[in-house]
Amino acid sequence: MSRDPSLIVEVLAEALPYIRRFSGAVIVVKLGGNAMVDPELLDTFADDVVLLRSVGIQPVVVHGGGPQIGDLMRRLGKESEFLDGLRVTDAETLEIARMVLVGKVNREIVAAINTRDPLAVGLSGEDAGLIEAGALQPALGYVGDVKTVRPQIVHQLLAEDLIPVVSTIGADVTGQAYNINADAVAGALAGALAAEKVVYLTDVPGVLRDVGDPSSLMTQIEADEARQLIADGVISGGMIPKIGACLDALDRGARSAHLLDGRIAHVLLLELFTDAGIGTMVVSRDGVS
Amino acid sequence: MSRDPSLIVEVLAEALPYIRRFSGAVIVVKLGGNAMVDPELLDTFADDVVLLRSVGIQPVVVHGGGPQIGDLMRRLGKESEFLDGLRVTDAETLEIARMVLVGKVNREIVAAINTRDPLAVGLSGEDAGLIEAGALQPALGYVGDVKTVRPQIVHQLLAEDLIPVVSTIGADVTGQAYNINADAVAGALAGALAAEKVVYLTDVPGVLRDVGDPSSLMTQIEADEARQLIADGVISGGMIPKIGACLDALDRGARSAHLLDGRIAHVLLLELFTDAGIGTMVVSRDGVS
Amino acid sequence: MSRDPSLIVEVLAEALPYIRRFSGAVIVVKLGGNAMVDPELLDTFADDVVLLRSVGIQPVVVHGGGPQIGDLMRRLGKESEFLDGLRVTDAETLEIARMVLVGKVNREIVAAINTRDPLAVGLSGEDAGLIEAGALQPALGYVGDVKTVRPQIVHQLLAEDLIPVVSTIGADVTGQAYNINADAVAGALAGALAAEKVVYLTDVPGVLRDVGDPSSLMTQIEADEARQLIADGVISGGMIPKIGACLDALDRGARSAHLLDGRIAHVLLLELFTDAGIGTMVVSRDGVS
Amino acid sequence: MSRDPSLIVEVLAEALPYIRRFSGAVIVVKLGGNAMVDPELLDTFADDVVLLRSVGIQPVVVHGGGPQIGDLMRRLGKESEFLDGLRVTDAETLEIARMVLVGKVNREIVAAINTRDPLAVGLSGEDAGLIEAGALQPALGYVGDVKTVRPQIVHQLLAEDLIPVVSTIGADVTGQAYNINADAVAGALAGALAAEKVVYLTDVPGVLRDVGDPSSLMTQIEADEARQLIADGVISGGMIPKIGACLDALDRGARSAHLLDGRIAHVLLLELFTDAGIGTMVVSRDGVS
Amino acid sequence: MSRDPSLIVEVLAEALPYIRRFSGAVIVVKLGGNAMVDPELLDTFADDVVLLRSVGIQPVVVHGGGPQIGDLMRRLGKESEFLDGLRVTDAETLEIARMVLVGKVNREIVAAINTRDPLAVGLSGEDAGLIEAGALQPALGYVGDVKTVRPQIVHQLLAEDLIPVVSTIGADVTGQAYNINADAVAGALAGALAAEKVVYLTDVPGVLRDVGDPSSLMTQIEADEARQLIADGVISGGMIPKIGACLDALDRGARSAHLLDGRIAHVLLLELFTDAGIGTMVVSRDGVS
Amino acid sequence: MSRDPSLIVEVLAEALPYIRRFSGAVIVVKLGGNAMVDPELLDTFADDVVLLRSVGIQPVVVHGGGPQIGDLMRRLGKESEFLDGLRVTDAETLEIARMVLVGKVNREIVAAINTRDPLAVGLSGEDAGLIEAGALQPALGYVGDVKTVRPQIVHQLLAEDLIPVVSTIGADVTGQAYNINADAVAGALAGALAAEKVVYLTDVPGVLRDVGDPSSLMTQIEADEARQLIADGVISGGMIPKIGACLDALDRGARSAHLLDGRIAHVLLLELFTDAGIGTMVVSRDGVS
Repeated sequence: MSRDPSLIVEVLAEALPYIRRFSGAVIVVKLGGNAMVDPELLDTFADDVVLLRSVGIQPVVVHGGGPQIGDLMRRLGKESEFLDGLRVTDAETLEIARMVLVGKVNREIVAAINTRDPLAVGLSGEDAGLIEAGALQPALGYVGDVKTVRPQIVHQLLAEDLIPVVSTIGADVTGQAYNINADAVAGALAGALAAEKVVYLTDVPGVLRDVGDPSSLMTQIEADEARQLIADGVISGGMIPKIGACLDALDRGARSAHLLDGRIAHVLLLELFTDAGIGTMVVSRDGVS
Repeated sequence: MSRDPSLIVEVLAEALPYIRRFSGAVIVVKLGGNAMVDPELLDTFADDVVLLRSVGIQPVVVHGGGPQIGDLMRRLGKESEFLDGLRVTDAETLEIARMVLVGKVNREIVAAINTRDPLAVGLSGEDAGLIEAGALQPALGYVGDVKTVRPQIVHQLLAEDLIPVVSTIGADVTGQAYNINADAVAGALAGALAAEKVVYLTDVPGVLRDVGDPSSLMTQIEADEARQLIADGVISGGMIPKIGACLDALDRGARSAHLLDGRIAHVLLLELFTDAGIGTMVVSRDGVS
Repeated sequence: MSRDPSLIVEVLAEALPYIRRFSGAVIVVKLGGNAMVDPELLDTFADDVVLLRSVGIQPVVVHGGGPQIGDLMRRLGKESEFLDGLRVTDAETLEIARMVLVGKVNREIVAAINTRDPLAVGLSGEDAGLIEAGALQPALGYVGDVKTVRPQIVHQLLAEDLIPVVSTIGADVTGQAYNINADAVAGALAGALAAEKVVYLTDVPGVLRDVGDPSSLMTQIEADEARQLIADGVISGGMIPKIGACLDALDRGARSAHLLDGRIAHVLLLELFTDAGIGTMVVSRDGVS
Repeated sequence: MSRDPSLIVEVLAEALPYIRRFSGAVIVVKLGGNAMVDPELLDTFADDVVLLRSVGIQPVVVHGGGPQIGDLMRRLGKESEFLDGLRVTDAETLEIARMVLVGKVNREIVAAINTRDPLAVGLSGEDAGLIEAGALQPALGYVGDVKTVRPQIVHQLLAEDLIPVVSTIGADVTGQAYNINADAVAGALAGALAAEKVVYLTDVPGVLRDVGDPSSLMTQIEADEARQLIADGVISGGMIPKIGACLDALDRGARSAHLLDGRIAHVLLLELFTDAGIGTMVVSRDGVS
Repeated sequence: MSRDPSLIVEVLAEALPYIRRFSGAVIVVKLGGNAMVDPELLDTFADDVVLLRSVGIQPVVVHGGGPQIGDLMRRLGKESEFLDGLRVTDAETLEIARMVLVGKVNREIVAAINTRDPLAVGLSGEDAGLIEAGALQPALGYVGDVKTVRPQIVHQLLAEDLIPVVSTIGADVTGQAYNINADAVAGALAGALAAEKVVYLTDVPGVLRDVGDPSSLMTQIEADEARQLIADGVISGGMIPKIGACLDALDRGARSAHLLDGRIAHVLLLELFTDAGIGTMVVSRDGVS
Repeated sequence: MSRDPSLIVEVLAEALPYIRRFSGAVIVVKLGGNAMVDPELLDTFADDVVLLRSVGIQPVVVHGGGPQIGDLMRRLGKESEFLDGLRVTDAETLEIARMVLVGKVNREIVAAINTRDPLAVGLSGEDAGLIEAGALQPALGYVGDVKTVRPQIVHQLLAEDLIPVVSTIGADVTGQAYNINADAVAGALAGALAAEKVVYLTDVPGVLRDVGDPSSLMTQIEADEARQLIADGVISGGMIPKIGACLDALDRGARSAHLLDGRIAHVLLLELFTDAGIGTMVVSRDGVS
C-alpha cells in the first residue's frame, strides 16, 4: 500500500486512545430490518462488530425485521392489519413474527458474524427471562412493551467474549410471548446494561433541523432540548420513537445515544475511533457523554 | 397427604444417593418432535428438567421437529421430497426448517421451562460455532452431518446454572447452514460434553427382542451386542439410527445411553432416581455404566 | 421393587424442591442421651445424617449423656447429688462427665456415622474456643452456661463437607471446664451459626395441649404464644428447658426450631423432605419459618 | 533486662534463618504420658507449641496415656494384664482407654494450649477416618496397628492455623475401635503428612552408645546405622520401638526424626532455632536432614 | 556454641511474639548518607534487612546521599552554595544529585542486600509517579518537597516479597525533577504506606534532654510533647527536621516513629525483637505505639 | 480533520487485527544512546510506548548510553581507552558508567514516558538479580556479558501494567557490577521473556545488501541466511553485533527480531500496526514470525 506513513500515524494516534477508552465498554447496536436488505452492508457491519470485539469492546446487537415478517405473512396468505402504524398481532401473527425474527433474521446476522469469528450467539428476549413483556394496548393483541430487563444472560455471554444478537420477542410470567419494537428494546437493554453507548443504525444522516437540508444536521442534542424539539414538531414522524428510545436509554443508565447513517460503510468504526462527529449524539446534559 | 411414611422414607433413601451421585453430572436429553404434540407431556418434561437442575444435575435438551417442518412446508405449498426416508433439502426448505426449529419448536420448549424457572436458553448449532456441519450426501442438499462439536458455549451456560435447549442446525466454515438429524446431534454432543448419560425420549418402551412382545424388553445392552443385534436384524427400522447415535455417544466419551418411553409421565425422574430399570440402557461393556 | 411409579414420582416431586431449598443450609440436631440406648435408632439417625450431607445439607450434631455419666459415677462409687434437677458437679464429677461425653458418647455417634462415610469429627466446646462458659450458679459447682460461641471451627469443618459432633463441655478463660446442658448448647450454637433449623430429637411426639391426649399435638407455635403457654402451665416439666432453648435459638438468629419424636425411624427425612408436618415447630412469628 | 545486646543479636541472627526455613513446615511432636505428670513441663510445652505456631510453623501433637489408663483401670477394679509389655485389651479395657485418652489426657493438653491462644482442636484417629487400624495380634485383643492414614482432616485444621492434638484410637472399616501405640502413630502420621520433622519428647537425653555414660550421646544416626545398632544390641529396651517409629516415619516420607529429652524446659525451641545439636537426630542417609 | 540454653530460650521467647506481631508489617527505614561511609555498618544493615524480610516483615529503605553529592560536585569543579543549610540546586546540580543518588548510593545499598538474597529493587520517586514534588522555595531552585505520594509501586514490590530501596528524587507533572530531603520522604512514605514504624538511623543515641549527657536519653515522646520541646529549644539543630519528619509520618498514618543510633551494629534487630527500649520512640499520644 | 473517511477505515481495519494479535504480547525495544540526542525523537518514542501499553501490548525498554558515558568521563578528566571498539572499564569507569546509565539516561527515558502516563519504572540489571553477569574478557575489566537472566521482576512489573526501562548494568554473585552491551542485553532479555518481538531502533534503514544503495534493503532474513551473510561479509561492521543479538534472541525464545530506522517518527506504530514492511525482520526460519 502506498499510503502516506504520516497519515497512518495520525489515524492511529487518534484512534488508540479511543480504543483504550472504550476497552471493556458495552455498546448496544440496533440494526434495522432495512439494513438486512443490502448484503454488502451486513458484511461491513459484521466486520465492524468483530473488529470492535477484537479490541476489547463488548458489542450487543439488537435487530428488528418488519419487512421480513410482512413477506412471510404474504406468502402464507395472512393479511397484515395496522393500527397507528403498528401491526395488529393475533396468535398466528405472533408465531409468524417469532419464526421470522428468531429463526431467520437473527440467524442471518449470527451467520454473517460467525463466518468471520464464531463469537455470535442468538438470543431471544424469552431466553433466561431476559425481557419480561406486557401488552402495549389491548387492541394491538400480542404487541408488547418492556416491563423488566434481566440482563444477566447478556453479561454472562459478554464475560465469555461472545457477541449476543438479540431478537425482540419478550414473554410475560405466564409464558405468553409478545413482539416488541426493536428501538425500545435496544434502549431498555442499553439502560439495563449501563452501556457506554447505544447506537441506532438508520437510513438517515441523523436529526436534521430542516428535513430537506442535509447541512442542518444536529451533531449533539441535550435530552431536554430533544424533548423540546419533539414538542416543537422539529423532530417528527419515525424519528420520534427513535429519539424516545434514546432518551429512555439515557434515563435508564446508558451514557450516550447515537443516531448514525447505517448506509455509510463502517460507520461504527468512524464513530468510535475518530474525533470527527458523525450523525447525532443525544446526551443527558450539555457536553456530558 | 396420607401416604405411608415408611414408603416415603424408602423412596427418599433410595433416591438421595442417586441425587448425590448425579450432582454436577451432564445429562443430554433428546426430545422428539412427536413429544411436542401432547402439551401435557411437554409440561411434565419441563417439570422434570427444572427439578433435575434444582438438585445440581446439568440437563441439556436437544430437540427435533420433523412434523412441524412438514406442516409449514404444506402451508407454504412447498412439496416435501424424501430420499431413503430423509427430506431432500434445498435452500428454501432449509430456511423453512430453520425457522421452524429455531423460531418455533425451540421457543415452545424454552417457554415451557421458563414459566417454571427462567433458566432455559435456546441455542442453534450455529451459535458460537457449536456444531460444524457438512453435507451428508450431495443428493440430499442441505442435510448435514456433524463434523466437529465445540461445546464451550454449552459448558459456559451450564456453569451459569442455565439449561441449554439446542436446535439441530449446523453450519460449515463458509456459513452455509445444514439441517442435521437430532438423534445424531444428541449423541455427538453427549460425547463432546463427556456426559454422564444421553437419554432418548421415544414413543416405544425401549429395545424389544420381539417387536410384538412388550415383555421382551432388553433392559441393558453392551455396545458389541447392539452391533450384533443390528447385524442380525433384531434391531431394525427407526431404531437403528437411535441405537447408532447411542453407540456414537459412547464412542465419543458419554458414560451411558438410554432409550426411554417418553409417553410415561416423569420418566426422567424414574430413570435417574430409582433402582428400577426403565427402558433400555446401552453401555460400552457389560455392566459398565 | 414393585412400588407404584406414580407414587414414587409424587414423593420425589415433593422432596426435590425441599432438597434444593435446604441445600447448603445448616441444621443443628440435638440428640438426647436416651436416644443412645436403642442402637437401631442410632443407626437410622446416622443414615439420615449421611443422606442429608450427601444432598448438600450441613448437619451439626449436639449430644448429651446424662444416663451414661450416672453409670460411670456409680461404677466409681461416686454418689450423684442433685439440686433442682441438676447434678452438683465437683472437680471429680466434672472429670467423669468429660470422659463420658467426649471419650464415650461422642465416640459412639462418630463411629456410627463414620462406618457409613468417614465424615464425622468429634468436637468439644473447648476445641478452638468454641464455647466459652461460666458457672451457672455457685452451688452447682462446675455446671456451666454458655457465655460466648465462637463458631469458626464449626464453619470450617462444614466448609470441608464434614459433620461436626459436639460434646457440651465448655471452658472459661482460665481454662476451667464446665459441663453444660445440651439443649442450651444446641440452641446457642444454632443461633451463632444462623442455622436454618435446630431440631430436638426427644421421646415425646411434640408439644401436646393436653399431655394425656396425643391428638392434641400443636404443630406450630409462635414464640410469644410459647411464652404464654409456659406462663399458663400448659408447657411444663422437662418440656420447659427444651422450649426455652428453642426460643433462645430463634432469638440468636436461627430460622426455626423443631421438637420431633426421635423414636420414629428416619424422622429427620420426613420432617425435612415432605409437606406433612411432624412434631412441633416453633417460629419467631406466626407463619414465618 | 541487662542482657548483652551482642549476645541477643547473636541468638536472633542464628534463629531467624531457622524461623524462615521452618515457616510453613509441619512438625509432629509426640508427648509421652509421663510428660503429663509434671504440670510445669506441660506449661512450657504449651508455650513452645503456641510460639511455633505464631511464627508460621505447623505443630501437630500426638499423645499417649498409659499411666492414666492404668489409674482408671485400678479405680474401676479392673485388672491390667500384659503380654510382651503390651496391655491385653478387651472391650471394656478399650472403652476405658478411649475415655481416658480422648476424654481426659487429650483435653488437658488442649486446655493447656487454649488458655494461651484458643488454637488447639482435639482429634481421635476415628475422626474423619484419620487412622484406619487393624488388630496387632489376636492375643492382644483391641490393640491395633496403623493400616492407613487419611491426613486430610489434619491438613484442613493446619490450613486454618489450628493445632491438632491427636489421641491414638483408630477404627477398622466396621467401626471397631483399637488402641494404638502412640510412638507408632506419630511416625505414621509424620510420614503421611510429609512432615519436616517428627520429634519424640522422652525422659532420656537421646540414644547413648553406653547407656551409663551421658557423654556417649549420639547426635546423629543414619537409618542403616540405627538398624545395625539395634541388631548389635546397642539400642535396646524401650528405645527400640521409638527408633523403630523414627525409621518408619522416614520411610513414609518425613524428612528427619528426633529423640529429645522432654525434661529440658523449652527443648523444642532449642532444637528448632539454634545451631546446637540436642538429643539424637535420625536421618535417611548420612547428613541428609 | 557454648551459650547458656536458658538465655537462648529467654531471648527467643521474648522475640517470637514480636516476630509474630510484626509479620506483614511495613517498616520504613531511613539510612543517612553518613551510614554509607562505614562499609561494615552497611553490611550489618543489609543483614538485618534480609533477616526482617525472611520472617515476613516488609522493610522499605529510603536513603540520602549529601556527602556523596558534594564529592562529585567537587570533582566536576562545581561549587556548592548553601542557603539556610540547604544546597541551592540549579539544573546542573540536580543532574549531579540524581546521578549520585540513583546511580551510585542506591546501587551500593541494592548491591549490599542482593549479595545476600536478590530481593532489593532500586526505585526513584520518579518511578511510576511515586513522589509528586514541587519547589520548596524559589531561591533554592530544584530543591523539592513532597506534594503527593502514590505508593502503589511500593505496595506491588512488597507484595512480591521484594525490598524497595528509594532514592529521594521526585518530579512535578511537567516531568521536572527535584531533589528532596530524605527525612521528609521517609516520613511521607511511611504515612502513605500506613507503616507500622518509620525508623531513622542516625549518628546520635536519640533525643537527649541535655545534649551533653547521654544518660538524659528520652526513650519515648508523645507528639505534643515533642512540639513543645522544639518550642522550648530542647530539641534543636539537625534534630528538628528529623523530629518534624517523625511527626509528619504519624500525622499521615504511620503508627510509630523511631530515632535509633545507626552506629550500633544490628540496631534494627534489637529495636524490633527485644523488650529493651533503644533510642527514642515518638508516638501520637502517650503510650500508643 | 478533513481526512478521507474511507482511508481512515482502511487504516483502522488494517490496524485492529494487529492490535488484537499483539494484545498481551511482550515487545522488547532497544533504544540506542544516539536516539537520546534528538529530544523530539525521544518524545515520539514515549508517545508510541504509551500508546502500545494503552492497547494491551507490554513494551519493555532497554537502553544504552555510550556517548553520555564518554561525556562524563571527559568532564572528570578521565581518559577512555578502547580495545577492539570496547571501552576498557576499570572500577572508576564502571562507577561513572553506572551513574550515567542508571542515574541519567534511564531517568530521562522514564521522565519522558511518565509525563504522558506515570507507568515507567527504571530498572538496572542488578535489581532483584535480573541480570547475572561475568567478565567478557580479562583485558576489558568490568565489561560484562550476560550469564543468566531472571526475568521475574520484569514479569511482575508488566503484570501491574507498568513499563520497565532497563539499564544494562549486571552483577556477579559477589555483587561486583559490570557494564554490558545493550544490544546483547535486549536480545537475552527478549529470549528470557519469550517476547513476541525484539526491536532495535538504529540509525540505518535496516540491513542493506549494498551499503551504498538504500533500495537494496532486505525486508526479511532467515537466521541461517543471516549467518551466511555475515560469513560472506555482506553484513559487516556495527551491524554484526546487532544481527548477532537478533539471532541470540531468536535462539533463546523470542519469536522475531527487527532492525528499524529509529529516525523515522513513530516507527514502532508503523511496524506493529500496518501491513507495510519496515526495516529488516529476522526470523528463525523462512516465513515464520
